[in-house]
Order: sequence, then structure tokens, then C-alpha cells
Amino acid sequence: MTEISLFEAIYTQRSIRKFTDEPVSEEAIAQILEAATKAPSAGNRQPWEFIVIRDPQTRQIIGDYYLKAFREYKARVLEQAKTLPAAREQVARWERRGPPDAFAESLSTIPVLILVCLNREKLGVLHDDPEQPGQIPSTYASIYPAVQNMLLAARGLGLGSVLTTLHCRYEQEIKALLGIPDHVQTVALIPIGHPAVRFGPTTRIPVQQLTHYERWGARKEKG
Amino acid sequence: MTEISLFEAIYTQRSIRKFTDEPVSEEAIAQILEAATKAPSAGNRQPWEFIVIRDPQTRQIIGDYYLKAFREYKARVLEQAKTLPAAREQVARWERRGPPDAFAESLSTIPVLILVCLNREKLGVLHDDPEQPGQIPSTYASIYPAVQNMLLAARGLGLGSVLTTLHCRYEQEIKALLGIPDHVQTVALIPIGHPAVRFGPTTRIPVQQLTHYERWGARKEKG
Repeated sequence: MTEISLFEAIYTQRSIRKFTDEPVSEEAIAQILEAATKAPSAGNRQPWEFIVIRDPQTRQIIGDYYLKAFREYKARVLEQAKTLPAAREQVARWERRGPPDAFAESLSTIPVLILVCLNREKLGVLHDDPEQPGQIPSTYASIYPAVQNMLLAARGLGLGSVLTTLHCRYEQEIKALLGIPDHVQTVALIPIGHPAVRFGPTTRIPVQQLTHYERWGARKEKG
Repeated sequence: MTEISLFEAIYTQRSIRKFTDEPVSEEAIAQILEAATKAPSAGNRQPWEFIVIRDPQTRQIIGDYYLKAFREYKARVLEQAKTLPAAREQVARWERRGPPDAFAESLSTIPVLILVCLNREKLGVLHDDPEQPGQIPSTYASIYPAVQNMLLAARGLGLGSVLTTLHCRYEQEIKALLGIPDHVQTVALIPIGHPAVRFGPTTRIPVQQLTHYERWGARKEKG
């Protein structure tokens, strides 16, 4: 097991969207998934399930849905950028680095896709209901921490990964393709491979600008 | 900076619900929050904001809401346990270890509460809408990975933490108390202190039972 330090992993974990052809071992995938299961969940219900996809034909079909979803998403971000500063920055980054179309187009060629599933039966919450205060965030708080453990574990093993959710736009089609039952939701699609680009450091807004003390908007620590 | 390894942190991170009175340094809180900001988010929008709460009176008011929410939650879990195996296990654990009422009752005495906020304006998504496929999971996929980084960073610094969301039941009251604007949602309340109990290992379902290959329900690797 690698001895990368926790903080080095956190500081250098980065969304990797370019991969080499080198295969990914079953052992590495098992380590990544085991790391996922160490995350917390409400009442320790552990509502996660994972589908490991290596079959080229399945990757191709999912890749096609992903690319359609990406094109819809890209159009929406370009529209948002007319009024929303955070979207404008995203588009500026695309212009600097080249748009992420290449990633969406290459999805089916990445060695492993892990579809992270949320077994809602275990939570006793079969559907998102905005009328129930707190029900929606509590549900997702029981799955995305596990996803972050996967991204960090991949980084720790020298593998690249990226958290994507665009497949959700075609969730019904993908669930039918893979035989996923009604009470199970697909919440993330994580491509994994050997990175063809560097890990971080990443670019982030300084945390001081996002920290409030005691009340919203109070920027300075008291005392 | 501590040199705990990534995998040791992931394997021993555990929900800590008993704390000593020892104060938590501002530097440690800053490291935990900075770790949060290294997480990925959709389009690198970085929609997180953090309120650091040490004021005893504020902690008392939030603690009172939390305790009310906890009692409602506990009643619901006891009801669920009549039919749901995952809830039955949760109740069995409460019976073995003593119910978690003591934690809910003690919340206001924990040195620091961090309220993790989601600035929805940055995502251009002001409300959860179950009619928009994928919109809800994509939103929360941009905040709970940051929360997991916080839990791991706390572990790395020898501090205890626990991801809680029950305050969401009284979110409107808490937002009014702290002056949080409409476009900002509170998605997690994370108490932080020096642990009065051990870190992990934790108890989890073996990952093999939760891994599928190529299709839902296919338990054995092909080949």
C-alpha cells in the first residue's frame, strides 16, 4: 500500500481527463472501492453499490449517452455565462485550455468506468422530496463522501479519476442497459485510468474569502 | 503538517461523538477548511462557504434545534426498524452501545461547530427540482466531497468530527439566526473537537457484497 500522506493526496487530487492505454489492475479497483466503504453514512446504512465496467461495448453505449449529455450541458453553461460570473470563469478556462469536448468524446476509451449507485431502500427514502425539509441533502450526504474517498484513493495509487454526473440525464436508459432496479439511483460515473497529465496542485478561491465567523458575512475572527 | 498516510486516514476516520473540553486552534480549523476547498466541484464553481461557530449562545440555540430534530429522527428510525433491515441494524447498534441521545444533548458543548453552506447562485441552480434529470445529484456532488475532505483532514490532525445533517429540519430558523441569504443552503453541521474516544477501524459490509461486474447483480469478475 502506497505511503502518500493524507494532505499530499488532498492537495494534489485533481480531475484527470486524459488517460494512457495502460490497463488498471483489479486489485487497484478493489482498493478504491474498499476506501469508498470507509466513508460515513446516515445511521451507518452504507447505501453504496458499485458497478465496475470494462466491457468495450458497454463503455461505448454509456460514452454515447455521456457525449449527448455533455453537449446539452455545454450549451447550458455558455448560456449561463451571459449572466453568471462563476459560469463565465468556467468558459474562460475552457478558452484557455481548450474545451472539454475531447474528454467527453474519449469517455468510452478509458479503461474502467465505475458507476456509483445509491441503494435508496437502505435509507428508506425512495424519492427526492423537496417538501421534506432536509431529506434531500441527508440522502446525498450518505453517498458523495464515499465518492471522494474513491477519488483520493485513486490519487494515492497513482491513478487518475474524475467525478462526473452528466450521465444522470440519461439515467433511465443506462439503468435499463445495466439491469439496475428501481430503488437504486446512479449518482456518479467515475472513469479511472493511468493519467496522461500531471496531478495537482489545483486552482482554488482562497478559503479566507469563503469563511465566515459566527454569522454570515462576518469575515474577521473575533478577538 | 502531520504525516498520517492517506489510507490510514481513510481507514481510521470515524464519526466521533464524544469530545474533551480542550479547545481547538484556529490554525487547525483553517487547515480543515482549506482541505475542503481542494475537493472537486462541477465546472470548478467551488460553491462552498463555511461558518465557524464558537459563540456559546449560538451553539446553545443550534443545539436546541438539533436535539428537537434528533428526537424526530429517532422516532422515525424506530418506526422504520419495524420493516427495514438496515434500520433494524441501526437500532440494534443503539441498544449495544447506548442510544446517541447523549451526543445530541451535548452538541452545544462541543468547542467548534462548522456549518457548511452551498452557495447555489454559483451553480445557477437555486432550487432542487426532481423534474430535471440529474440536477439534484449534480448539485450535491459539488459539496459533499468537500465535506469528506474536512472529516479526513480533522482525522489527520488528530481531531474528532462527525457529519450531521439533522439541523436541516430547522434550516429556516438557523438561516434566520445567522443571517444566511436565500440563495445559500446549509448542507452539513460538523462539530469538531479533541476526541474522547478512539478513532477507527470501523465496521462495514465487505465491499465484495456491494460490487457488481459489468451489470447489476453480476457478482463474479468475468474471465
